[in-house]
Amino acid sequence: MLEHKSKIKFTAYVAASIDGVIAQNSKISNTWASKEDTIFFQRALKEHDIFIVGHSTYKNAKARLDKRNTVVFTSKVKAPKKVGPVLFFNPAYSSFLAFIKKNKYKKPAILGGPRVYGYFIESGLLNELFITLEPYIFTNGVQMFKGKAFKKHNLKLVWTKKLNKNGTLLLKYTHAS
Amino acid sequence: MLEHKSKIKFTAYVAASIDGVIAQNSKISNTWASKEDTIFFQRALKEHDIFIVGHSTYKNAKARLDKRNTVVFTSKVKAPKKVGPVLFFNPAYSSFLAFIKKNKYKKPAILGGPRVYGYFIESGLLNELFITLEPYIFTNGVQMFKGKAFKKHNLKLVWTKKLNKNGTLLLKYTHAS
Repeated sequence: MLEHKSKIKFTAYVAASIDGVIAQNSKISNTWASKEDTIFFQRALKEHDIFIVGHSTYKNAKARLDKRNTVVFTSKVKAPKKVGPVLFFNPAYSSFLAFIKKNKYKKPAILGGPRVYGYFIESGLLNELFITLEPYIFTNGVQMFKGKAFKKHNLKLVWTKKLNKNGTLLLKYTHAS
Repeated sequence: MLEHKSKIKFTAYVAASIDGVIAQNSKISNTWASKEDTIFFQRALKEHDIFIVGHSTYKNAKARLDKRNTVVFTSKVKAPKKVGPVLFFNPAYSSFLAFIKKNKYKKPAILGGPRVYGYFIESGLLNELFITLEPYIFTNGVQMFKGKAFKKHNLKLVWTKKLNKNGTLLLKYTHAS
């Protein structure tokens, strides 16, 4: 099983403010990402064969996600359910890793929101994480990760890249555990 | 007034996880900062002439803060009140900038927590910000900044420094407005 898992790479992408906010609220999508981050993000997505989002993220970006191979995590189904172009999936009832292996996906991209990011870090599936830190402070809003409880998950910084003159920072981490 | 203000530099220090968490809860002080961050922080504090904290931060670090020139922000006093070695101050009732100018302080250090950081960014007083990003994800806990409402405050990245091999990052920002 570990051998099979090792061929699959789960990658998460997060764009956040310095204070770790990813959105004003769950109904408003990010309109403040820099042009440079948007270019990086769109290019990076081309490398992936499946995209995982939560229900709010799906609703905020439905038109674009409907054109991709998208899985929407939701608590509203038990068994996986295809609705239109996307698959609704409840990871509390079905093994998401088994699903990925069965369908021979190799490069899942995790696009948020906080509970979906939280699921992948808590389940130990997350392999790498790209964080774009925009040079803003919002002081309120939706936080990056939402897990079940405070816990120290160890990551390792691979590299940093300054994307523009204002200091948008792109950080690549791998999951150390 | 602007001329006087320009001689004073307000500097905030924050140590956080990648997901913007600064503590498990307001009663537990940070025990996960790297040795390298602790060394940076203790050296940096020597440059300052006054230290501003909130009530929880004060209680968590009372022994050390009682030896410094410390102001504790609190809603429990109206007029500034000296209690033992520290001054309790309510910025809703008294001008903190007027207090700093009257006492000829030049280098205030803002040490948290979230509402104190929030006050300084919202009031426009904050000049520079040092953020140490430890390579952890906590998924829950106390967030870096707490302001009145979601608002985009612009900062500018001055430099980044990798403090150790795990990738603890020290980021220096200036307030762009």
